[in-house]
Amino acid sequence: MGEFELIRRYFASVAQSRPDVALGIGDDCALLVPQVDGAQLAVSIDTLVEGTHFLPGTRADYLAQRLLGAAVSDLAAMAARPAWFTLALTLPEASPEWLESFSKALAERAQELDIALVGGDTTRGPLTLSVQVHGWVEPDRAVKRSGAREGDLILVSGTLGDSRAGLQTLLDEEPEQASNAYLRRRFYCPQPRIALARALAPWLHSGIDISDGLVADLGHIAHSSGLGACVELETLPLSDQLLAYAGVEQAQRWALSGGEDFELCLTAAPEQLQYCLREAAALGIRLSCIGRMHEGQGVQLLLHGEPCTAGPAGYDHFGDAR
Amino acid sequence: MGEFELIRRYFASVAQSRPDVALGIGDDCALLVPQVDGAQLAVSIDTLVEGTHFLPGTRADYLAQRLLGAAVSDLAAMAARPAWFTLALTLPEASPEWLESFSKALAERAQELDIALVGGDTTRGPLTLSVQVHGWVEPDRAVKRSGAREGDLILVSGTLGDSRAGLQTLLDEEPEQASNAYLRRRFYCPQPRIALARALAPWLHSGIDISDGLVADLGHIAHSSGLGACVELETLPLSDQLLAYAGVEQAQRWALSGGEDFELCLTAAPEQLQYCLREAAALGIRLSCIGRMHEGQGVQLLLHGEPCTAGPAGYDHFGDAR
Repeated sequence: MGEFELIRRYFASVAQSRPDVALGIGDDCALLVPQVDGAQLAVSIDTLVEGTHFLPGTRADYLAQRLLGAAVSDLAAMAARPAWFTLALTLPEASPEWLESFSKALAERAQELDIALVGGDTTRGPLTLSVQVHGWVEPDRAVKRSGAREGDLILVSGTLGDSRAGLQTLLDEEPEQASNAYLRRRFYCPQPRIALARALAPWLHSGIDISDGLVADLGHIAHSSGLGACVELETLPLSDQLLAYAGVEQAQRWALSGGEDFELCLTAAPEQLQYCLREAAALGIRLSCIGRMHEGQGVQLLLHGEPCTAGPAGYDHFGDAR
Repeated sequence: MGEFELIRRYFASVAQSRPDVALGIGDDCALLVPQVDGAQLAVSIDTLVEGTHFLPGTRADYLAQRLLGAAVSDLAAMAARPAWFTLALTLPEASPEWLESFSKALAERAQELDIALVGGDTTRGPLTLSVQVHGWVEPDRAVKRSGAREGDLILVSGTLGDSRAGLQTLLDEEPEQASNAYLRRRFYCPQPRIALARALAPWLHSGIDISDGLVADLGHIAHSSGLGACVELETLPLSDQLLAYAGVEQAQRWALSGGEDFELCLTAAPEQLQYCLREAAALGIRLSCIGRMHEGQGVQLLLHGEPCTAGPAGYDHFGDAR
C-alpha cells in the first residue's frame, strides 16, 4: 500500500466537511476561508514522542484522544474557537490495525471538538505525532499570559493531579480496573475547556492551560505579567479518586507539578469572581480560586498561611531540576 | 537550561516582525491577522526524519535550509504568498552548537522567503522536524492538482534530477569539492518557485511541486484531473552538472523518479505557452515543455516518439516498488 493510498483510506473520514474548508486533504496545501468579522487566527503546534510523552505500546485510540485534546487545549487557553487541524504522523510501520484504530478515534474526537482535519504528512520513522491546531478569536477576547494584574485572583478549572496519577497507574503496570479508570481517562483523554474559556473571556486578565504543571505554568503567567503569584495549597482542587489513590500530600505534589492536566489557570479581578463562578456552574465545570497575583516574582506556596516549598517546578523536556 | 529558555534564546531572532503577527512565539498560541481582500489561507505541514529524509550527521544549517525550502515549495505549488510558519523540533539533546547553527540558517532562509516563525514546540526524542507553512492566495489563482485539461502542455521549472545526484554524492561519501558543490546545493537548499507560480497562476490549469519525482507527482495531476499524461524523455531539462556527473541515462532516471527537486510541474493550454515562457524568462527561470495531457490515465514515457518504461514511479515512504 502506498503512502497516498494509506492517507486517503484512513483519514478521509476524519476530514469532516466544514463550510470554511475550500479544499481539504489531498493537494499540496489545504485552502481555508477566513472569517470576515475581524477575528484573529490562533495557531499552535504540539508534538508527542513515544518514550518521551507516552509509553511504548500505548493504544492507538488513546493516543489520538490525547493528541487532539492536548492540542486543542492551547486554543482554549487563548479562548479561541477550534476550526481546523493538520497532522504530521511519523510511524515505524504502516500497520492497518493501528491506523484504523487511530483514525477512528481521531475522527470521533475531532467531531466532539468541532475541528476538521485539513492536511497532513505521513513519514516513516520513530513514532512521533505533531498536530497543528487553528482557531478564531476576537482580538479583544484573546486571553494571553501577559495580562495579569496585581490583586487578580487565580482560578483553575476542574481538578489537578489526576493525569499524573493516571500515568502512575500505567508506570506501575496496574491492570485496567474500576479504581484506576477515572485517573487513566484523565491522562488519556484531556478535555479542552473551550466552552469555559469562551464564556469567561470578557472578564479574564490572563490565562494558560496547565500542561507543564501548575507551578510552572502559573510561573509563565507571573513572569510574562511582571508579577508574583501566591497559591494556597489547601485550596487546590483535588478529585476524590486522586485522594483515594495517592493521599493528600502526594496529591498536592502532583497537582502542583504533575503536568498534563490540561485544565485552565486564569486570573481575574476579585469583583469578577462571582460572575466567573456562576458561568462555570452553568456549564457544570468546577472552578476554584487558589490564590492571588501580587507584586514581586515567582510562585509562592502557602500552607495554612505559612510559606512552604514544593517539589520540582514542572515537567521540562530539556531542563534540569529547577 | 530549560526548554523555554532554549526556545527564547535561539528562535527569538527567527521570529522577524510582520504587521500581520499580533502575537508571536511565547504564548499558548500565536495570533495572526488575516488579510481582508478575500484571499484564502493555504496551509501545509511537512516532516523530515533523520535516517528517512536526511543522513545522520547532516549539518544543522543545511537541515534548516532544506526544511524550510521544501515546506515553502508547497505554497509555491498552490501559487500562494508565504506568510508564517511554525516549527515542531524533536531533538535527542539540546546542543547549543547545533541550535545556534540551525536557528541562524533558519532565520536567514525565513527572511529570504519572506515568512515569519510564529510558534513552535521543542521536545526530546529522535531527531524529527515538522514545519507548517501558511500563505495567502486569491481563490481564482489557487493552482490545484485537479484542474488539468485535455491537450494541456506539461511545463516544468528549472532542471530535474540534480537533488538526487547531490544525495548520491553524499551516499558515496565524496568529500566536498567543486564538482559536487552545485548538486549538493540543489539537494540541501531547494528554491521554492514562489515568484514563478505567482506570475503564471492566471494562465495555469493545474500544478504540483516535484517532491516524490516527476512521474509520481505528474501522476497525481493526471489522477486528480481524470486524464493521462505523456512525457517526451528527450525534453527533460537536465543540468550540465548532472549530465557530467551521471551520464544521460542515469540523469533521465533521476529526473523521472529521484524526487525532492522542488521544481514545479504545471499544465496550461498550448496558446498560453509563449506567455508562460516569457514570464519565466523575465524571472530568469528555465521553463520547459515536456509533454501533454490526454484522455486516458497514468503517465506514459516516450523516447523519440516510441513508448518506453521508466524505473520506480517515485519515492514513497511506505510503498513497495510500484
